[in-house]
Amino acid sequence: MTELEKMGAAAKSASRQLAVAGTARKNQALAEIRRALLENEKIILAANAEDMANAEKNGLKSAFMDRLLLTHERIDAIAGGVAEVEALPDPIGEVISMADRPSGLTIGKKRVPLGVIGIIFESRPNVTVDAAVLCLKSGNACILRGGKEAIRSNTAMVEVMRGALKSSGMDENCICLVRDTSRDSANEMMGLRGYIDVLIPRGGAGLINAVVQNSRVPVIETGKGNCHAYVDSSADIEMAVNIVENAKCSRPSVCNAIETLLVDEKVAERFLPMVLPRLLKHGVELRCDEKALEILGAAAVPASEEDWETEYDDNILAIRTVAGIDEAMAHIARYGTGHSEAIITSDYTRAQRFLNEVDAAAVYVNASTRFTDGREFGLGAEIGISTQKMHARGPMGMRELTSCKYVVYGNGQVR
Amino acid sequence: MTELEKMGAAAKSASRQLAVAGTARKNQALAEIRRALLENEKIILAANAEDMANAEKNGLKSAFMDRLLLTHERIDAIAGGVAEVEALPDPIGEVISMADRPSGLTIGKKRVPLGVIGIIFESRPNVTVDAAVLCLKSGNACILRGGKEAIRSNTAMVEVMRGALKSSGMDENCICLVRDTSRDSANEMMGLRGYIDVLIPRGGAGLINAVVQNSRVPVIETGKGNCHAYVDSSADIEMAVNIVENAKCSRPSVCNAIETLLVDEKVAERFLPMVLPRLLKHGVELRCDEKALEILGAAAVPASEEDWETEYDDNILAIRTVAGIDEAMAHIARYGTGHSEAIITSDYTRAQRFLNEVDAAAVYVNASTRFTDGREFGLGAEIGISTQKMHARGPMGMRELTSCKYVVYGNGQVR
Repeated sequence: MTELEKMGAAAKSASRQLAVAGTARKNQALAEIRRALLENEKIILAANAEDMANAEKNGLKSAFMDRLLLTHERIDAIAGGVAEVEALPDPIGEVISMADRPSGLTIGKKRVPLGVIGIIFESRPNVTVDAAVLCLKSGNACILRGGKEAIRSNTAMVEVMRGALKSSGMDENCICLVRDTSRDSANEMMGLRGYIDVLIPRGGAGLINAVVQNSRVPVIETGKGNCHAYVDSSADIEMAVNIVENAKCSRPSVCNAIETLLVDEKVAERFLPMVLPRLLKHGVELRCDEKALEILGAAAVPASEEDWETEYDDNILAIRTVAGIDEAMAHIARYGTGHSEAIITSDYTRAQRFLNEVDAAAVYVNASTRFTDGREFGLGAEIGISTQKMHARGPMGMRELTSCKYVVYGNGQVR
Repeated sequence: MTELEKMGAAAKSASRQLAVAGTARKNQALAEIRRALLENEKIILAANAEDMANAEKNGLKSAFMDRLLLTHERIDAIAGGVAEVEALPDPIGEVISMADRPSGLTIGKKRVPLGVIGIIFESRPNVTVDAAVLCLKSGNACILRGGKEAIRSNTAMVEVMRGALKSSGMDENCICLVRDTSRDSANEMMGLRGYIDVLIPRGGAGLINAVVQNSRVPVIETGKGNCHAYVDSSADIEMAVNIVENAKCSRPSVCNAIETLLVDEKVAERFLPMVLPRLLKHGVELRCDEKALEILGAAAVPASEEDWETEYDDNILAIRTVAGIDEAMAHIARYGTGHSEAIITSDYTRAQRFLNEVDAAAVYVNASTRFTDGREFGLGAEIGISTQKMHARGPMGMRELTSCKYVVYGNGQVR
């Protein structure tokens, strides 16, 4: 057995205990974790300081450093996240359906944990605690594998959480951390069938593609977001300007921000000059098709085919004029990643068509795509946003970390 | 583009039309398919006769030949299955939840099709029509790839179904058949990301393992069934005899039949001699651990480690004595495939423990595992039985062939 297989077996065994632990025991462990994180702040901050020093030495960018940094306030916020998960309803044990059947059997369908969840993520240490406690409350053991830059912070936080599990009488292997942060360990996790039930990659497109292409453990694909806003000819122009500004500029690095703006050519001459200053204010670079370029002139540059395909996650917006809703929807079908798509329109029929015909996790009429988020959708804290259709689609809360089981009550029935 | 990629693109395009076709249009197409299958019986039977002649020439076994054979009665039964799917409720368009959120957005979660479903199956021509119509009614296009021995029958039936789609004004590429039945075509299907949304293998363990190990398209693993019955010390012995006989002998070749009998050693001397004649009557071969062998004597042979692992799908039963429920559940956790597991007991606490702690798609108290079936569970016709935890678990009806989509109604909201 390799080290990782041993970890897998330990997590599997812990998951069996966790699956039948009631809500009270799980909440008690969460409270203990929250308390321990606050109590051990100094240890965690010291480990993080080493990660930060190392990152600085390696010349990593300031945006990266900011994501890596832990502070007193951030640890408070992480502990607050644990409290929030404590307060969320326990998805496990819900009876989804139950009925007497003609055979005389009583058949119920119950919600149960998935088992062991593997999470491969990049260097944001807050993800470590968020993911671990969401898994715990939903009855799942987890095997976490974070980025190498955050390994000291992650090790410290996972040790604190494992200690808290132990002192609340739970198996500490409910939360496991892979300390080998080389590509090998990620590859080995992708092959750990029988130990890991589901693998969730969280991070950039490169990481997610690698997992999707190579994993033999079932994967939930998350966070690929080539999102669009389509401004229809009947749109309320002021509303369209507000929505496009928000969807592009409020946080360009996230997956629910738009990358391409589609505009009906009948309204382009009126709309584009109005949205222009609102985008330039944020320093957005505009890459346009020919018609949009004619209208925007020197403020923009020409777009290439590659621009329609790219998830910039950056201060760049591609702009394309279209003949109408059919061309807009065809563009989205061709280039979209099935994350979040919006139409801005005052036409009832086109609104309905867009909602029905566009194939994405979330489709919007007259609102910013930035709302695609577990909290906004009412699911509580989220573990990621699924862009696949199997198992879960869109923001994933704790319910999306569950499976089901049929329980059958008989009194001697044979078939 | 390869031939299969072209087929994938055509099916994808058809799936878009099908996703927004209403129930009435889909039912009309199903009625047309049913009518066309009956009308073209002669063509189908002639194609099947060629398959049969070919199978005979190749010296295939009579059980295989029987599964391959189509007759007037079987085509009637296939058409009856289509009528049944027509009568089942349409899962598409169901609003799973809908609520106004604090942001002012109205957010609904709707049931939508998966898109394109690939099905790789062996040589049972009835699966061709069953699978195609379940996909159609649930709004999914399908790409079918059956076994080479049934290719003429499958081609004839798919041609009839495509003709029926055409004459009811639907895109005939809602139902596609891969005519290349070499291993290459199966491998190519497993790599068809972007065209095939989900792949469902139906058949023996070899086929299913190959797909699970190699597919880069998301897979639903079906039908692996190393199932157990555990006779507890408190069991009603007569009930236990009936259930064990039924679970092993009523149809040994199917996945919900039991492969291993676990018996509490406190009751083994009373129970085993009683069940023995009921098993021998069906010609079941018994492979036993030491204690069971002492009791059953010459009627049995010794079991090896391999026996606990094997899904015989045949007239063989492994028998093991255990010290109690914990040892029984540990055996099931180690060797079971998570399909169907039963306890026969009159003890309330042990019944509850078995239901809660055994990790399988279906767990039974005092009933035969043979009930794990879409119709028996109230789902209508089934496309297979999932033994994985992601997306669907246990018998899969049409609802298990769906995904969901968030529809968001705003009036200018930004975040």
